[in-house]
Amino acid sequence: MAKNYLMTPGPTPVPEYIRNEMAKPMIHHRTKEYQSIFKDATDGLKKIFKTSNDIYTFTSSGTGAMEASVVNICSPGDKVIVVRGGKFGERFDEIAKAYGVEVIQLDVEWGASPKASDIKDLLDKNPGVRAVYTTLCETSTATVFDIKSIGEVVRPTNAVYVVDAISGLGADKFENDAWGVDIGVCGSQKGLMIPPGLAFCSVSPKAWKAAETSRLPKFYFNFKKYKKAMDDTDTPFTSAITLVIGLRKALETINNKGIDNVTAEHAAQANAFRDAMKAIGLSIFSKSPSNAVTAVNTPAGMDADALIKLLKTEFGVTFAPGQEKLKGKIFRAAHMGGIDKEHTMESIKALEIGLTKMGYNFNAGSGIDAAAKILGK
Amino acid sequence: MAKNYLMTPGPTPVPEYIRNEMAKPMIHHRTKEYQSIFKDATDGLKKIFKTSNDIYTFTSSGTGAMEASVVNICSPGDKVIVVRGGKFGERFDEIAKAYGVEVIQLDVEWGASPKASDIKDLLDKNPGVRAVYTTLCETSTATVFDIKSIGEVVRPTNAVYVVDAISGLGADKFENDAWGVDIGVCGSQKGLMIPPGLAFCSVSPKAWKAAETSRLPKFYFNFKKYKKAMDDTDTPFTSAITLVIGLRKALETINNKGIDNVTAEHAAQANAFRDAMKAIGLSIFSKSPSNAVTAVNTPAGMDADALIKLLKTEFGVTFAPGQEKLKGKIFRAAHMGGIDKEHTMESIKALEIGLTKMGYNFNAGSGIDAAAKILGK
Repeated sequence: MAKNYLMTPGPTPVPEYIRNEMAKPMIHHRTKEYQSIFKDATDGLKKIFKTSNDIYTFTSSGTGAMEASVVNICSPGDKVIVVRGGKFGERFDEIAKAYGVEVIQLDVEWGASPKASDIKDLLDKNPGVRAVYTTLCETSTATVFDIKSIGEVVRPTNAVYVVDAISGLGADKFENDAWGVDIGVCGSQKGLMIPPGLAFCSVSPKAWKAAETSRLPKFYFNFKKYKKAMDDTDTPFTSAITLVIGLRKALETINNKGIDNVTAEHAAQANAFRDAMKAIGLSIFSKSPSNAVTAVNTPAGMDADALIKLLKTEFGVTFAPGQEKLKGKIFRAAHMGGIDKEHTMESIKALEIGLTKMGYNFNAGSGIDAAAKILGK
Repeated sequence: MAKNYLMTPGPTPVPEYIRNEMAKPMIHHRTKEYQSIFKDATDGLKKIFKTSNDIYTFTSSGTGAMEASVVNICSPGDKVIVVRGGKFGERFDEIAKAYGVEVIQLDVEWGASPKASDIKDLLDKNPGVRAVYTTLCETSTATVFDIKSIGEVVRPTNAVYVVDAISGLGADKFENDAWGVDIGVCGSQKGLMIPPGLAFCSVSPKAWKAAETSRLPKFYFNFKKYKKAMDDTDTPFTSAITLVIGLRKALETINNKGIDNVTAEHAAQANAFRDAMKAIGLSIFSKSPSNAVTAVNTPAGMDADALIKLLKTEFGVTFAPGQEKLKGKIFRAAHMGGIDKEHTMESIKALEIGLTKMGYNFNAGSGIDAAAKILGK
């Protein structure tokens, strides 16, 4: 196998035609040419988010947009609910605390999805809660949360509903407006299939109402500056121009296909991959598996990181390791962005050989056969 | 003229070999391959900054690193001195105020350089000042400040010396350690000749001492997280990987030539451009002109923005307009990063024709002749 198959849940592979688009000569950003690109990109994002709200583009990692969703909404001493079901839920907790916001933690077993009723209970007990922070796809556990149901319990309250859709958007179903999401957070290097470096927030009128009175200090991530710059179809500070150019191109592809068709494709890959794992005899870590990424438990006694290293070195297939308490116990394979059928099938092939080399006994070829039933040969 | 000549002070043109390097297939960042790239880039930056201090890489606009230099050093109610000699000096003022830091403003006439003695007076009068914020090249006025002399008056005090070298580095002389700079701030899209999206802070032991006790809230730009991640030759949040790959390549070129030779080349272009303007009969706006960018006063009665539009439309030469109070009165041409002799000579040619079309009388060809005396034909 000469090709490299990047199967990590961010960065995902960037298709060659997008890379070539970004490799064109540099242009200046305060020009009509760039304004038109930025407008296309922003309009394209709205279709993916399924929102009519403003979307602001930050030059930052996804974490920057998570921070924006805290510093623009809260004031010192505010109470917020944070759903902690993995590494990225915990990050909201850390950000809020760093800014002196009081966090009501809803701890969810890693790999499980939070219950909307638990969030409703917390909202009932704490009527002044400023915001609820949760995650569409908790990348660390490859778990999709029921954002729609949680939205139904948050919507009637004064709390702003913030959803980190960084790794889910474009693979897991997401309906920003229909589900009552006030701030949808996303990053560029996952389902949107461009390199890392851009992050996004959709901002609803309800979120804006909170933003108007928020007293946490902010400058670089201040929504008001982005809203004002939007009048000139621009950002307040120089954007990562090449990435915005790539974004426009990637969104053109996705929106030409239609976001529902794109998520259906990735869902098929995810289902094929999971069926393959089960056929091989491996179990899926998550109780609520995401279509963006799958976490697979390695067989008892097998070090997941050793398997990952073998697949990378010998077959050019890059899976992601488990993080924190899952390190060495799982490997993760993504199904979003530029990861296509070929990636999925080739990675299963490599995995079958790798597992055999590591001494695991199973019905060789059964994984490929199971996946082919969904994806074709 | 078929080519486009981007002469703006950020973004500057990105050489094709760097664009091609960034267009290679995506790689994952938690790998030895990427660690090696990031280490090379960081080591390469240290040579350009002339520092042995740590340098942290943020995925953000330059403004993000400016914010980092405030939130990591100050606490609420601290007093800082900000030199305001143009739009970017004023930005430090705005950031500090957004975080509740008290600003002692040193207002400098636009186009002039601040006097070190004035800063000394302010430091003497305000013994508890936490930091002094100033600018190497004030891009808005194309003015270089005497960072060395200011450093001499700040060094004996407890104040942290912060220099925005975003647009100067790589064109104007800069000696981070020798001049006593505690935090040197830079961005990617100027002298470093890659696209926008990365920003940097060098951090001295004196700055770290202040950072240890700083109580301003921060998360994404928290130096401590970047320092810790550096132990794994990484950043705490996913970097703009392709830009780091481009940075490594660009720095390889610059450091192979030697930073002093590179700044000498850009100084020659700047001198040639200014001599050309004088030969044509145009005056230079700044009293202390930078080698990174030149601001030229348009002839009386001529709208600078109309001239810029003509040059862009008819000759593919993009100059930058004046900002705020200088709008319509000046045009700016950069001399840094990927802007080379050819850019300089071709832009002067276009300018001569454009000025003639706009009805300005001068000795045609005199600009080109003056520049050629320095740069050759």
